[in-house]
Order: sequence, then C-alpha cells, then structure tokens
Amino acid sequence: MRPSGRAPDELRPIRITRRFTRHAEGSVLVEYGDTRVICTASVDERVPPFLRGKGRGWVTAEYGMLPRATHDRMAREAARGRQGGRTLEIQRLIGRSLRAAVNLEALGERQITVDCDVIQADGGTRTASITGGYVALADAIASLRARDALRRDPLFGSVAAVSTGIYKGTPVLDLDYAEDSEAETDMNVVMNEAGGFIEVQGTAEGHAFRPEELQSMLDLAQKGIGELIAAQQAALAEG
Amino acid sequence: MRPSGRAPDELRPIRITRRFTRHAEGSVLVEYGDTRVICTASVDERVPPFLRGKGRGWVTAEYGMLPRATHDRMAREAARGRQGGRTLEIQRLIGRSLRAAVNLEALGERQITVDCDVIQADGGTRTASITGGYVALADAIASLRARDALRRDPLFGSVAAVSTGIYKGTPVLDLDYAEDSEAETDMNVVMNEAGGFIEVQGTAEGHAFRPEELQSMLDLAQKGIGELIAAQQAALAEG
Amino acid sequence: MRPSGRAPDELRPIRITRRFTRHAEGSVLVEYGDTRVICTASVDERVPPFLRGKGRGWVTAEYGMLPRATHDRMAREAARGRQGGRTLEIQRLIGRSLRAAVNLEALGERQITVDCDVIQADGGTRTASITGGYVALADAIASLRARDALRRDPLFGSVAAVSTGIYKGTPVLDLDYAEDSEAETDMNVVMNEAGGFIEVQGTAEGHAFRPEELQSMLDLAQKGIGELIAAQQAALAEG
Amino acid sequence: MRPSGRAPDELRPIRITRRFTRHAEGSVLVEYGDTRVICTASVDERVPPFLRGKGRGWVTAEYGMLPRATHDRMAREAARGRQGGRTLEIQRLIGRSLRAAVNLEALGERQITVDCDVIQADGGTRTASITGGYVALADAIASLRARDALRRDPLFGSVAAVSTGIYKGTPVLDLDYAEDSEAETDMNVVMNEAGGFIEVQGTAEGHAFRPEELQSMLDLAQKGIGELIAAQQAALAEG
Amino acid sequence: MRPSGRAPDELRPIRITRRFTRHAEGSVLVEYGDTRVICTASVDERVPPFLRGKGRGWVTAEYGMLPRATHDRMAREAARGRQGGRTLEIQRLIGRSLRAAVNLEALGERQITVDCDVIQADGGTRTASITGGYVALADAIASLRARDALRRDPLFGSVAAVSTGIYKGTPVLDLDYAEDSEAETDMNVVMNEAGGFIEVQGTAEGHAFRPEELQSMLDLAQKGIGELIAAQQAALAEG
Amino acid sequence: MRPSGRAPDELRPIRITRRFTRHAEGSVLVEYGDTRVICTASVDERVPPFLRGKGRGWVTAEYGMLPRATHDRMAREAARGRQGGRTLEIQRLIGRSLRAAVNLEALGERQITVDCDVIQADGGTRTASITGGYVALADAIASLRARDALRRDPLFGSVAAVSTGIYKGTPVLDLDYAEDSEAETDMNVVMNEAGGFIEVQGTAEGHAFRPEELQSMLDLAQKGIGELIAAQQAALAEG
Repeated sequence: MRPSGRAPDELRPIRITRRFTRHAEGSVLVEYGDTRVICTASVDERVPPFLRGKGRGWVTAEYGMLPRATHDRMAREAARGRQGGRTLEIQRLIGRSLRAAVNLEALGERQITVDCDVIQADGGTRTASITGGYVALADAIASLRARDALRRDPLFGSVAAVSTGIYKGTPVLDLDYAEDSEAETDMNVVMNEAGGFIEVQGTAEGHAFRPEELQSMLDLAQKGIGELIAAQQAALAEG
Repeated sequence: MRPSGRAPDELRPIRITRRFTRHAEGSVLVEYGDTRVICTASVDERVPPFLRGKGRGWVTAEYGMLPRATHDRMAREAARGRQGGRTLEIQRLIGRSLRAAVNLEALGERQITVDCDVIQADGGTRTASITGGYVALADAIASLRARDALRRDPLFGSVAAVSTGIYKGTPVLDLDYAEDSEAETDMNVVMNEAGGFIEVQGTAEGHAFRPEELQSMLDLAQKGIGELIAAQQAALAEG
Repeated sequence: MRPSGRAPDELRPIRITRRFTRHAEGSVLVEYGDTRVICTASVDERVPPFLRGKGRGWVTAEYGMLPRATHDRMAREAARGRQGGRTLEIQRLIGRSLRAAVNLEALGERQITVDCDVIQADGGTRTASITGGYVALADAIASLRARDALRRDPLFGSVAAVSTGIYKGTPVLDLDYAEDSEAETDMNVVMNEAGGFIEVQGTAEGHAFRPEELQSMLDLAQKGIGELIAAQQAALAEG
Repeated sequence: MRPSGRAPDELRPIRITRRFTRHAEGSVLVEYGDTRVICTASVDERVPPFLRGKGRGWVTAEYGMLPRATHDRMAREAARGRQGGRTLEIQRLIGRSLRAAVNLEALGERQITVDCDVIQADGGTRTASITGGYVALADAIASLRARDALRRDPLFGSVAAVSTGIYKGTPVLDLDYAEDSEAETDMNVVMNEAGGFIEVQGTAEGHAFRPEELQSMLDLAQKGIGELIAAQQAALAEG
Repeated sequence: MRPSGRAPDELRPIRITRRFTRHAEGSVLVEYGDTRVICTASVDERVPPFLRGKGRGWVTAEYGMLPRATHDRMAREAARGRQGGRTLEIQRLIGRSLRAAVNLEALGERQITVDCDVIQADGGTRTASITGGYVALADAIASLRARDALRRDPLFGSVAAVSTGIYKGTPVLDLDYAEDSEAETDMNVVMNEAGGFIEVQGTAEGHAFRPEELQSMLDLAQKGIGELIAAQQAALAEG
Repeated sequence: MRPSGRAPDELRPIRITRRFTRHAEGSVLVEYGDTRVICTASVDERVPPFLRGKGRGWVTAEYGMLPRATHDRMAREAARGRQGGRTLEIQRLIGRSLRAAVNLEALGERQITVDCDVIQADGGTRTASITGGYVALADAIASLRARDALRRDPLFGSVAAVSTGIYKGTPVLDLDYAEDSEAETDMNVVMNEAGGFIEVQGTAEGHAFRPEELQSMLDLAQKGIGELIAAQQAALAEG
C-alpha cells in the first residue's frame, strides 16, 4: 500500500557515514532512503554575546538545502538574501533537540555549530538532520575530550527523530516525499534513548486528527526511534 | 501553587472585544489575562501568484509585537530589517491553524490576511492570536456574506488554541509568563470544536517528558479549548 | 463646511490615557478623534555608541503603523525588510521634537526610546505621536526621579504638535483624513508651552501658499497647541 | 561676523554649469560656494506601476553623497545596504519641490528622474540640489519638446531653494557648514518665481524660535530665492 | 618540493562522478584531490526577463560553499543575508566560461542553471567547478536532446579550467590549499579543447610576475587542461 | 578603422587633475577620453578588525557609478539595497592592484580607502580608477609624510592599468565603449613601473583567443602603461 512497498511501521534503509568530509570536528552523511544530509559539527572556542562570561557553552544548528536537492530547483537562499521561514523553523528545531542531550555547563564556554545541508531531499530532511546531527555532535565532543579540553562528558543520552503520519487513513512511519505530499497528518517526533519526548510537532494537513490517531503515531515514532538510536550507536561504536 | 493563584486547569480571564478598530473587515482585541493582542482580518480581492486562476482563495497570517509589549524593550523588526525566526514560526502556525477552518474553494479567489499584533505580552501570545484571529476571520467572512460575495459559507467549525505545560512537576493550563519562563515542558495545542487536533507542538525545555505527561497536557488543552470556543461563540453571538 | 462639522479652529476630541500598557516606564494611548496611537517610553541605561563616555543622555523615537491601521491594508514594514521613507522621516521628527524639551546632560548617560505605534489612522498621526509621546516621556522621567536616579529634572517645558492646512480655500486646524487627502496645503507645527516654534513643516500639495496663508495657519496652530498642552497637563496632573 | 565674511543677507557665489556630463537629457553642476552637486535629469518612457494607464507622468528625485564629499569619510550607502533616513527625507523633499513646477498631465506617461549627487559638501546640499535639479529638469523637458514629444509645455514657473537660520542670534541667508553646525535654528525654504511657498521646513536646533524670527528668516529666503531664480534664468538663457 | 610530493606539472587525482544526485538533469561530483564540488545543471523552460521573446537561451551559474567546507567554519551566506564579493566573482566566471561552449540560439528559449556547491575545499574550487559544471551541463543538454526538445546540438567543444602559480619560485600546476596560501602568483585559466583561451586571470600575490613567468604558467595550464578535457570525455563516454 | 580614429596602439587623451575636491587627503579627477572618474583617498587611523594589533595597515577600494554616468540610467545601488557583482568584482580588483604598490608594515596601523566614483562612463572605468586611484593614494601618503606620521615611505613603485582587446580582428589599446561593446576579447592589465604584471584578466567575449593574440594584447598593454605611468609622474611632479 505504501508507494515504496514498506510495511506501515518500517523505516527506510538508514545509513550513517562518519568522517564524510575532513575539516569538521564531526562530519556525517546521514541517509534515510533517498534523503541525504551532510551534518558537520564545528567547535568554536567563543560563545555568542548573550553567554559571555557565564561559564556555559552553546549548541546551535543551521540548515540549508542545495538548490537542486529537490525535484524542482529552488532559489538559493543566499542569492535571495534571506533564509525562509521554513528554514528558520527547522534549524531552531534541530538546535533545541540537540541541546536536550548536552550539559551546557560541562561543555564550557565554547559553541558547537551543527550545519545540516541537504544534498538530496525525499521527505524527512529535518528528522534525518537531527539523527545525523547528533552523531556529528558526538564526534565533535569526542574530539574535545581527546584533547583533554573537557573535565566531564557534556553529552548525556542520545537524541533521534522520525516522522509519522496518516497516509490514506493508515498511520505510517518515516514518510518519504510521495507519502508526505499526500498525508492527511504529518508529525515529527524527537525522543531520547530513554523513551522521553524532546519535541512533538503534529499538523493536520487535511482534516483534524483524533486522539487515537495521535496515539498510533506516537507509538510508531517510539518504535522507529529505537531503531534509529541503535543505528547511531552502531555507527559511533565503529571508532 | 501557581504564581497567579489559579487552579491547574484554570484559564486566565478571557476577553474578546469585536470591532476594536474601524477600518478592518474583522477587528478583535483578544485578552488572555494580561496578554493583549489586536487581531485584524483584511480582505484582498487578489490572491498570491501561486493561486491565480485556480478558483481558490487563501488565508494567511502575520504576527508582530510592539517593541515594548514585553518586560524589556525588544528591537523593532522593521528597523532591524527582517522578521526573526520566532516571528516567522508563529505566523506560519497561525496561518495553518486558521486555514484548517476554511473551505478555500468556497472563499473564491480572494485572500484574507489576519494580522496579530501583540500590544502587551504575558505568555501565550500565539495561542491568543489564533483564538482571536478566528473571530476576526469570522467577522471578515460575515462581511463578505453580507455583501453577497459568497455563494456558500467557507467557514466550517471553530478553531482555538491554548498552551499547557509542566510547571514545578504539575501539568497546568494556559501558562502566563511567570510560569512559561520556568516550565519544564511547554505545549501549544490547536483544536477544533469537535475535539480534533489541528496542531500539537510540545517542547521539552528542561528534561524530556513522558507519555503520561503528554496525555495530561492534552487533557488540559481539551478542557481549555472547550471554554475558549464557548467564549468565541458568545462574542460572535453578540451581533 | 468641514466634513466633520467642526469649526475651522476646532480640534478633534483629544483623549490622553496614561498607563495604557503595563511594562513601559511611560505608556500612553493618545487619541485625536479617530486617530489612535500607543506611545511608550522605555528607559535604557546604555546610550548609543556615539555618546558613550560623554556624560549625556539621548532621547529617540520610532514610529510604526499596524498594517490595517489604514483604510486599505499596507504591507508590514518588518515583512518588506525595511522602514519606508515616510516612516523614517516621521520618527526623526518625533525624536527631534521631544529632545527639544529635554536637558540631555541632566538625563545622564541613559537613553529613552519613545515608540509610537498607530493602531488606527485618521490623519495627524505624527502630531498625535509627538503630543502623546511627550506624556509618555514625562512619565518615564518621573519613574527615574521616583527611584532617585536623577539629580535634577531633565524636562523643561512641554512640547505638543498639531497640523493645519488650507482646505477648500479656508485655513483649518487639526485635519482628519478626509480633509488631509484633499488639502491644498498641509503644515505640521510643533511648539512649546511658551509659544516658541520647535518645528514648522509646510508643504504645498496643490498650489503654492502665500505669506498671509502661512500666517493664518501658524495662528491656528498656536491656538490648538495651547489646548493640547492644557490636555497634557491635565492628564499628567491625574497622578 | 559670518565666518565667510558675508553680509547676513548675502548668498555664496552661485554657479550653474549646464551640460556637465554628456549622457543625461539634463546635466547640471550647481555650486553654492564650496557645495557642489551634480544634478542629472533622465527621461524614462515608462511610469511607475501606480500611474500606468492614467495618462499622467511623474517626476522623482534621488539623492546621494560621494563618501568623501564630507570632512570625514561617510560609509557608502550602497555598501551599507540601505539609504539612511536623512537621504530618504532629502530626496522626498527634492521630488515634491520639483513636481510643484510640473503639469504631470502635460508631461504624458513618462517619468523624469532627477539624480542629485553631492561631490563636495559645505552646507545647503539639499537646497542646491533643488535649484540645480530644476535646471536639469528644464533641459530634459526642452529635449522632449525638441523632438516634438510634448503637445504643451509641462513646466510652469520656476522653483528654487535656500536655507536660512539664526546664527549667533542673527538671521542669516544660505548657511555654509561652519554656520550650519552652530546655528540655533535652521530653515529650508522652497519658493516659486511668484513668491509663493512650496515648502517651509524650520527646525529649532538650540532653543525654540519666536514668530518674529520666523518672519525674518522668511524675508531673507524670499530675497535669496529671487537671486537664485535669476541665476537659473540666466543659465537657461545661454542656450 | 611540493607539499603533496607532486611534480610541478602534475595534476591532483581527478575524479568525475556523474548522476551523483537524482533530481537534476545533470549532476556531477567533481574531485580535484581533496577539493570536492557538487555540480548540478537544472533546465528551466523560462528565460530571464532580458531575453524573453528573443529566441535565445541562457546558461548561468551559482556558487556556494558549505560552511564547514573549509578549515575554519565560515558564516553561511544565506544567514548573513548576502553573497560575498568572492562568491559573486566566482559564479560570474563559471557562467561566462560555460556560455563559451554553448550556442544560445540552438538552446532555444530556456535557461540552464549550473549550481556548484563545494562540500570540501582544498584549493581550486572555481576551476573544479568549471570542469565539473561542463559535464553536468553536457548531461542536461543530452537530456533535452533525448526528449527531442532541440533541433541541433547547442554544445560546441569542451571547456575546462585549472589553476597555475609560482610557488617558492617555481611554476606549478593545480595548486592545493597549502600551495595556494603561499603562492607568489596565482592564475586561473579556462580553455577549450582546441587550445583557445576562454579566460585568463592572473594575480600577483607577492611581487609582480614577469612575462616569462606568465608564459610558463600558460604552458602548464595548457598541459593540465588537455588532461582535464580527456577526463571529461572519458566520463561522458561512460553513457 | 577605430570609431575614434585612433591608431591601434594609441591611448585616449589622458588627464589627471589633482586636488579635485577639498576634503580628502588625496582627490583626483582622472579622464581617459570621455571616461571620468573621481578618485579620493581617505586616511582612517583605525584598521579593520582582522588587522588590529598586528602593526600593519590596509589599503582598500570602493567603486560606484552615478546612475546616469551611462547612456541609459542604471538603478542606484544604494536604493536597490546592495552592490552588484560587477561593482564588487571591480572594487576588489582596484584594492588588490593598489596594495601591490604599498608596504603595509610601513603604513602602520591605519587604513586608506580609495573611493572611485564614475561620473561619466565611456569604457575603461576600472582601469582609469586604478591609474587615478594610485595618484590619490600617493597624495594621501604624502600628506601623512608631511605631518611626520610615517618613518619610511610605504609606497614602492607605481601602478597603472589599461584595457586591450581584439576589435574587428585587430588588437587595440584602451577600448572606448563603442569598441568594448563589440570586442571579441577584452583584457584588463595592471602593471608596475618595472614592467611587472600585477593583474591580467582576459575574457573571450566572442570566440576563444589564441596565444599569439594574447601576446599582442600584452605588448599593447605594456606600451600603454608606460605612457600612463609617465602621466602619473608628471601629475605628481606638479607639486
């Protein structure tokens, strides 16, 4: 029934490639099927002005798409002179989600910027960005630890994200573009390794969704995030 | 226990004043306690380029705050030269929520813009904007019907919004600023008059929230939105 | 003869409501008939860079209109990405006019920003902003004095403003929109309580105006400003 | 008593050089003493959108300063990404003043843009721009008439401008920078050849000015503008 | 002597991967050693306004770098709100170079946009962009031919580019970052398959270069471009 | 054969007028025939942030055109809100070229900004800007030396620039607009007084150019720059 032939609770093939580029402290290519995002984590020994002298660090995110990551070419945001509302909304979500896994005091007065750049889009770019961005962040923190810059580990737990939705009346997991563009409801869920919710964003695209539909989508998300966190751990274990 | 002395499931005093200014087709001052927002709905007989010639209308929203609506003065977005990410995110939410109550084909090729301008902020400005914006929208549509511009009513059902959160460990309804700035979790819920969800946005500010906490917050939201929709109907019934 | 039925030298009903919103040190709703402007005065303990370390303060103004303050909706300046020439011209005028009543050395190294936001426009928004802004400024200065932050009163005298013009050949006072849009000449006059001119800006819209017409308009302005300053004093006396 | 040794009612040496550059339909170098402004008038056979199909033309102005026209280098507005409030205010004034001498119906559906670019500033750049801009405009209109593009002359009368002010207690005409920076009051006056006022803008820089001071300044302006209009006519008579 | 151990006239390993992403009509990953650039060519059936109705097409280019393509993270141009001078200069160069290989009349009224996005930078990003962009462009044109949209082939010849420079007194080919940052002279050369020059841009970074140095660099470029064009042809032959 | 009747290796009449405006430390009007550019050099005792505390100075350039310097009026860059790619490319070239003649350590921690503003364009504005900008720079440095601000002369050698091209099959020197708009190849060459190349930028507009054509153009440039440097020296010798 799904265009891809997947079962309703089946993720697309997930691939996490570390050290994808060589300059960043953390650099990951994350793939949710045909959705491909480069996530880099960059350490800056300065914090933004609002945090100076407070003994705390910061984690922030930026998001972008190559103009032809999508089926039709989209105008380059740098050329248009501003980031659109969708971009700002997504990068705020990624930043909040990743900060939920970091003890900012333990990070010290430094900032880590996670850049998520979509090179090919097929639905779920924001959730892939969070899942891949977490791995890049973990690598960047490991590089700080490797050079003894941190007294304790600022990372606690894992964070991953997935979308769920109601497609042709059925709750499904990890929507691709073909499903996403026709879904009646679209929900993005961010969770940690303990099953706690970091962020829940559900939107009725067609008609309003009922409490039991909400529950089904949350259940699917929980299952999918368990698998995603396992994939993150496997990638990080490769050393 | 709440700074305002309210019960956990108690809304702030809600006031909806129609015809607050005289030029707009719909003009409402909505108050959730000390949060005060002017919502105007403006009819434009042209639609944006992407809808021209398609026989459908559009409903969109813009959001702003007067610089001193808040405790400390914020820089004026017009002077800074751009709307911030928070503003764009909120106005996208308001627009999506209001469109969920409108049959765009029945609206015909015209656009209604709902401007939500906060003149005093005390938490919950986006939820008040949705609740008040709906009433302004209803008045604008009524003005179109009064001049026989519509063959059928494009409005179906009602839409209202409220925030819930976990404050000092307890789920509470309709957070004011004192609560919001200390809440562990913050959730904005938009529902229709039939109890269907239009939008659910929950964010863990402190620690992740558990499924049962999510459920408690949704229950509170459902109760609050029932009261808000009653307040909308009472205001609209005044004629 | 005037659309409103007023005598040529008659102001519209003037209302000055103090403490209109609760966060600002001074907050005033000023109404010249149907023209309604929220004026807030905000104290900032820092001065702009060009004044740092010079022992003097600064008073500045910003001006805006809600998009539907006018008969037709105007594009939101924050969304367009810049303030228009008219806005900049008006806020420069308001700032200059208010500074004429303030001893900047006595204010000390702090800045007061007066925000004038028009919620309903019916002609004369810049003059109402000056008259209302002065009251907000006086309240903000009083709040500084109340907390013993000033050794001497930086406020000397009062400042108020009114428009005059030639409407259908007759000099008239305090033009509303119906008159303003058809006036042959439009003049904005800012004066102090001693009858001195702070600013005179007269523009021939139709044909050039003669010296005796200029004199008639200045006489009307003088009369009107006397009444406006009395209204300011009455409002400030309410305590 | 004046830094330049001039009598109070004495203009600086005025020079108007036509055909200063070769591409524009009208091109004038105007000099008020050391203030030097290049004014070009460019004919465009299209009108701005708000005038299309209305059978009327438009005259508009733009103003700029070379970065080192002033004593200290100012940031280039093109590099800063926007025109400042002073620039916008001045170009609006120039445009309004020049339109006062043009019958826009007689101009037909075309636009004339008058660019005023200050190459050396010594006070009075906006008044020199109006006086020089008028000559450039007259030449551009003459070029239209020379190619039989107009049925009747859209130009009626002349427009010129001069500043006056109170310097060390004395009303003086045509202030240079040394005077302008210390003047207690500064007034810019635009008049036509019949002695009618097009624009009067007076600002108290130090203390408020009295009605008799205003009268003295207007008298000085009237004398100065008579001489400026004579200089314009002499320049235009050279053929 | 070269940091990489290469001979002075030796290119880095060149890799050209076609069909790197799946949405674009042409999509190439080009690698000059550690410099990696994604080049996509997108067909748009509309031309820019200045070409409408003229029966000719257009080829244009845009260039960007991921923020962490470089050793230190650079600010994202979309977030800064504008493309820098270096970016604009490079994308103008790419566009001019590619247009030199295209008969715009034969292309018909359509535009091809070549986006060159650097995911890893190690010197020579603009020359790699031209070489890879040509292959993407050729694929896009082939896709038009495959659907019979063109009557004749708009592509004539090949275009490729390489840098040369004087490094520690010796002319070298295809500088990497370690060389580029210390080179006394840097030259970018674009040539066609017939050995004709499309673009020559040489800059003395340290001291001025002599005519014989210029000649040596041009000779190196000619050799390198021969190899690059062979690599392009090999990639395109793979079908 | 050339539209101007010049010999292929003949420059247009060159005029260099020093002290053209009075505020700048160096102020030059440079004319290459009908191309006229005002070049001012402004000394700022502060350096940009990236050079603070490094004991070195900086020379930078900005470039602009008056809107009607060209045959058709171009939009004012300050009004459009940004400098175009061509402007940025040219001012980067001017800055690089002038820095090639300056010992930045000897300049000390100060910046000289050379503004090149075209008041009339007839081809070759960038090369005229470099040649004239050098003279303005020399005057600014002389003013620093005159007030004993420098221990040694930061200026070494001269820098001048000229264009060459292939016009109707013949290599020609110093193209005017009539030639430039039809040239098959256009090359800008910057050289020093010793015949060393500072910058070579050649572009094939029509077909690719051959090595021997490149050589002819370089020979012409060398001849022209010799004459331009002589003109610079003559102007500077006038004292």
